[in-house]
Amino acid sequence: MTDPHSTPNPASPLGNVRIVLVETRHPGNLGAAARAMKTMGLGRLYLVNPHCAIDDEARARASGARDVLEAAVLCQTLAEALDGTVLSAACTARRRDLPHPAHTPRQAAPLLLAQAATAPVAVVFGSETYGLSNAHLMQCRWLIYIPANPDYMSLNLAAAVQVLAYELRSTHADAVIPLPGFEAATHGEVEALLAELERALVEIGFLDPARPKRLMPRLRRFFARAGLEKEEVAIWRGILNAVRQATRKN
Amino acid sequence: MTDPHSTPNPASPLGNVRIVLVETRHPGNLGAAARAMKTMGLGRLYLVNPHCAIDDEARARASGARDVLEAAVLCQTLAEALDGTVLSAACTARRRDLPHPAHTPRQAAPLLLAQAATAPVAVVFGSETYGLSNAHLMQCRWLIYIPANPDYMSLNLAAAVQVLAYELRSTHADAVIPLPGFEAATHGEVEALLAELERALVEIGFLDPARPKRLMPRLRRFFARAGLEKEEVAIWRGILNAVRQATRKN
Repeated sequence: MTDPHSTPNPASPLGNVRIVLVETRHPGNLGAAARAMKTMGLGRLYLVNPHCAIDDEARARASGARDVLEAAVLCQTLAEALDGTVLSAACTARRRDLPHPAHTPRQAAPLLLAQAATAPVAVVFGSETYGLSNAHLMQCRWLIYIPANPDYMSLNLAAAVQVLAYELRSTHADAVIPLPGFEAATHGEVEALLAELERALVEIGFLDPARPKRLMPRLRRFFARAGLEKEEVAIWRGILNAVRQATRKN
Repeated sequence: MTDPHSTPNPASPLGNVRIVLVETRHPGNLGAAARAMKTMGLGRLYLVNPHCAIDDEARARASGARDVLEAAVLCQTLAEALDGTVLSAACTARRRDLPHPAHTPRQAAPLLLAQAATAPVAVVFGSETYGLSNAHLMQCRWLIYIPANPDYMSLNLAAAVQVLAYELRSTHADAVIPLPGFEAATHGEVEALLAELERALVEIGFLDPARPKRLMPRLRRFFARAGLEKEEVAIWRGILNAVRQATRKN
């Protein structure tokens, strides 16, 4: 195992987020957690006193994130894993008596990232069977509760890591997906198309100009909701043209 | 397997959300997906042509969500699984050439829940190896991209289900305002309209069945973006009917 301390990524606060797994029991969860981390751009995995080895099952479940798994930092105690962090949050399903501040992942993510901009932070997960002990919780600054079904709140360990990692990445990226490559039609192009559509509907006898009712307003609303692109205007004009030729043909 | 249609939960839009897994290959993922769903209060699992059985591994990974797994609806085709839904979103990592409306899970959740307040909606996931085919994507109204590390965006299938389920629950907990007054068309109604449109375009000579090019995919995309209402389907069918009568008249 190598020390990820030596390969920080100062370009992104995600590079300052440690995922700390305490006393994990199933090797598959180690691998799946590494995969969950890497898909969201996290690379710093800390294993506190794991009760299983990084074996073939762990590597299989890590899939393309074996590098994260192999780079995991092995620690004897939680204190070791938290060394150097400026903020640590314990992810827990059970409500506790402890008067820690508690956040949802969504509330926690911007607060964690704000700190991670300049220094390491940690999100801590307990074992599959026992979660985190009170002694471990006491070492963390906050609790994080994932909102869950009160009748069954038992997230798989790696699934919980995925949710936290996803929240961190989404908050960091502010995740806007630009729609690729299509040019919107202008107001004038849309109006011209609607006028042509209206004429065609009159010609085929579907629209009675003397009693238009709400037909054109309904169609306007439909086209407005879709938001026409230039190419689509061309397609619709082509269709209207074909309709007129077909009705006049004979 | 039983039909969850018979046990809707009208108390919560989450009860109207179907998770549709297409051609899943690993039984462990079936179980893990069921667990991910139940932790977030989702119960309607649909399996389209699964390439594996619900075996001991699936049940072990489902943990306390075996009920969701055992109640899964087995379908031969995606169309079957989408039958009766008013909105379907395909979860995909790859960017596509034919861009449906694309949303992040966070953007998608309130839109899905608004529809799910009154009728079934579906979130569709492809196989571990191949994702969703274009033919499958074309049957869905939107794409959902989970924001991910561009260098490694390969989320485990159940992890992707967990992220979507988590967003739906988090958004639901934040209270969703239902869409006013208009009733959405079902998947079947939209498909029937598109088939009728295609026949009409062939009849008027605008679409050459021997060389269809990209016309129908483009029109599909346009209608998907608009999101048809029941009344609008009736209007368009009326228009197509009038076109056919006008072209045959003479």
